[in-house]
Amino acid sequence: MIKTIEYNNGIVRLIDQTRLPGEEVYVECRDYQSVGDAIKYMLIRGAPAIGVAAAMGVAIGANNIKADGFDEFYSKIESICDYMIERRPTAVNLSWAVKRMKNSVKENREKDVSSLKKILEDEAIKIWQEDLSINKIMAENGEELIKDGNTILTHCNAGALATAGDYGTALGVIKAAFVKGKNIRVFADETRPFLQGARLTAWEMKKEGIPVRLITDNMAGYFMKKGEIDLVIVGADRIAANGDVANKIGTYTVAVLAREHNIPFYVVAPISTLDMSLDSGDKIPIEERDKREITDINGRKIAPDGIDVLNPVFDVTPNRFVNAIINEKGIIRPPYHENLKKILK
Amino acid sequence: MIKTIEYNNGIVRLIDQTRLPGEEVYVECRDYQSVGDAIKYMLIRGAPAIGVAAAMGVAIGANNIKADGFDEFYSKIESICDYMIERRPTAVNLSWAVKRMKNSVKENREKDVSSLKKILEDEAIKIWQEDLSINKIMAENGEELIKDGNTILTHCNAGALATAGDYGTALGVIKAAFVKGKNIRVFADETRPFLQGARLTAWEMKKEGIPVRLITDNMAGYFMKKGEIDLVIVGADRIAANGDVANKIGTYTVAVLAREHNIPFYVVAPISTLDMSLDSGDKIPIEERDKREITDINGRKIAPDGIDVLNPVFDVTPNRFVNAIINEKGIIRPPYHENLKKILK
Repeated sequence: MIKTIEYNNGIVRLIDQTRLPGEEVYVECRDYQSVGDAIKYMLIRGAPAIGVAAAMGVAIGANNIKADGFDEFYSKIESICDYMIERRPTAVNLSWAVKRMKNSVKENREKDVSSLKKILEDEAIKIWQEDLSINKIMAENGEELIKDGNTILTHCNAGALATAGDYGTALGVIKAAFVKGKNIRVFADETRPFLQGARLTAWEMKKEGIPVRLITDNMAGYFMKKGEIDLVIVGADRIAANGDVANKIGTYTVAVLAREHNIPFYVVAPISTLDMSLDSGDKIPIEERDKREITDINGRKIAPDGIDVLNPVFDVTPNRFVNAIINEKGIIRPPYHENLKKILK
Repeated sequence: MIKTIEYNNGIVRLIDQTRLPGEEVYVECRDYQSVGDAIKYMLIRGAPAIGVAAAMGVAIGANNIKADGFDEFYSKIESICDYMIERRPTAVNLSWAVKRMKNSVKENREKDVSSLKKILEDEAIKIWQEDLSINKIMAENGEELIKDGNTILTHCNAGALATAGDYGTALGVIKAAFVKGKNIRVFADETRPFLQGARLTAWEMKKEGIPVRLITDNMAGYFMKKGEIDLVIVGADRIAANGDVANKIGTYTVAVLAREHNIPFYVVAPISTLDMSLDSGDKIPIEERDKREITDINGRKIAPDGIDVLNPVFDVTPNRFVNAIINEKGIIRPPYHENLKKILK
C-alpha cells in the first residue's frame, strides 16, 4: 500500500514526489511552513492529498501556538489557514480542508487552548482517514464502468499519490476493476510539463502490477482513432456546480478527443472537490507556474534562452464532455446542476 | 538566412539539429552512409529536408562508385537509393527524391559513367535549389490566409530547418506574412518527444524576430478555448490522394481541437509530399522510434525502469479536418481527390 502522507505525534511524513520514480525519499515536516512548502513546490500534489496535507499542517501549526484564550488562538489559526490556502489556487480541497479545521475550533469556543489543539489534531486525522475510506468507496462505485478487456486512458496522476494513499481517485477505480480480476490495461499520458503521468502514474501502475503503457500527451488522439482506448478516467481539482471540471492541463484536450471518438469520459473526485459556490468552471482560478517547468528538464535547457513561455497548469472541461462524475455517493450523471445538488442534501 | 543543408564539391554540409538550440554545429558528410546516418538519427529531419539530403547522398555515393558501363553503375545506384529510402519510412519526399535521381540516370543510359556521375550531381543540386524556390512560392501563395493581428498555432517544426533552408513550409507562410508587415504572433507546441517545437521552431522564430510563445502540446486546447488562436498551420510528411495528411504525432489532435473551436487548419507542403499512389492516409506507414525518446530526456530517466512505452512519431489527419493544402500551385481546397489531381495535370 502506497502511503502518500501520514501524521504521527505532531510530525507530518510524506513521500517526496518530485524525486519519484528514481528515488523513494520521505520528508518529515515539523512546522506548518514546511508543509506549506511541500505543497507549493509539489513534493506533495493532487487535490485530495494537498487537502489532507493542509489539515495536518494546520494541526502542527496549532501545536506551536502560544495564546491566551480563544480569540487570540483562533486569530492565529486563521492566519495559518490563510497561508495554507495561498500555497496553491486551483484545487478547492485545500480551502475545504482548512474550513473544516477552522469550524472544528469555532464549534468549541468554550474549550481551553490545549483542548482546541487536541481537537484540531483529531480533525486532521479524521480528514486523513476519511480520504482513505472515501477513495475505496469511490473505487467500488466506479469500477462497474470498466468492462473486462477494456483499455483505459488516464491523464496526470489521480492515484494513491494524489490522495492520502492506497487507492486514489481515478486510479482507484482502475485498481478496483483490476482487483476484481478484470483483464484491463492502462494508457498513461506523460503529462507535460511536470510529467506526473510518466513519473507517478507509471510508477503506481507498475507497483500494483497493472499493465500500463506510457505515451506522450499528443499521442492520445492517435490511439483513440485506432480504436485502442475504450474509456477515459481522470481526477479533478475543482468541480463547479454545473459539473464543469478543472483538472491538469491537457484534460480538456483529452475530453474533446474522447467525444470525437465516442469514448466515454469519466471524472472521479470526492465531494470535497465540489465547489457549489461557482455556477460554472469559468470562474475557477487557473494557476500559472514557473516557466522553467517547460524550458528546463532535469536542469538542462531544452528551449532557446529568453523564450516567451506560458504555463497554465490546469484547464476546465465543460460539463457537456463529462459522461459521469463518480464520488462517494455514486455515479452522478447529467444534468449535473440538479444531480450534484441532490447528493449534497 | 538559415542554411539547413548545402552541397559543395562532393561534400554535404548540414546543421546538426539534435544540438539546437544550445549549439550551432555543422557536420560534413563525405560518403552516402554518413548522410544516411544523419537522416536516421535526425541530425537532419523534416520531409523536404530529408528528400534533399537523400538526393545529395546519392550524388556523393555515385562519385565513389567504380563501375564498368551503365548496368553495373545503375545497379550500384539502385542499392544506394534503397539504402536511403530505408532510413525513414513515413515522409514520401525521400523516395520521391531518389526516384528523380534514378530517373536522371535511366534517361541517359547512353552516357559514360563519369558523365552519369555529373548528371546525378546536377540533379541533386537542382532538387536542392528547387526546394528553396518552391518554399518561397508556397509562402507567397499561403500568406494571404494570415490576417493582420492573427495568432497562429504551429506544431513540430516545418520551417527552414525542415527544408533546404531559408523559408520552410508552414513557417514560410508565417514568415511571408511577417515580412509583409502583418502584426502576427506564433504559438509553438513543444512537440514531444523530440521537442522540435521547443528546440527548432522557437529558435527559428526568435532568429527571424517573429513573436513566439512556447507551450506544451497539451495546452493547445486551453488557448483555443480562450479564443487566443486564429488559425493553425502545419507541414506534412506525406499527403494521400484524398488529402489525408501524415505529419508529426499530435497533428491529428490539433486538427480535432481546431475543428471543435471553428479554427481553420492549413497544411503547407510541396507537391513532392503528395503520394497519389495511396487512396487514403490509412496506408501511410507510421514510423516507430526508440522508446528512450520518451523515457529519457537529456540522458536522464523520467519514467520507471522497464516501463512499456509506445512511440509512433507520426499520425494521419483525415481530409475532413483540413481546410486547405498550400503548395507551389496555390491554395488547394476540398474536394482534394479532385483538386489535387487537377494541379498535377
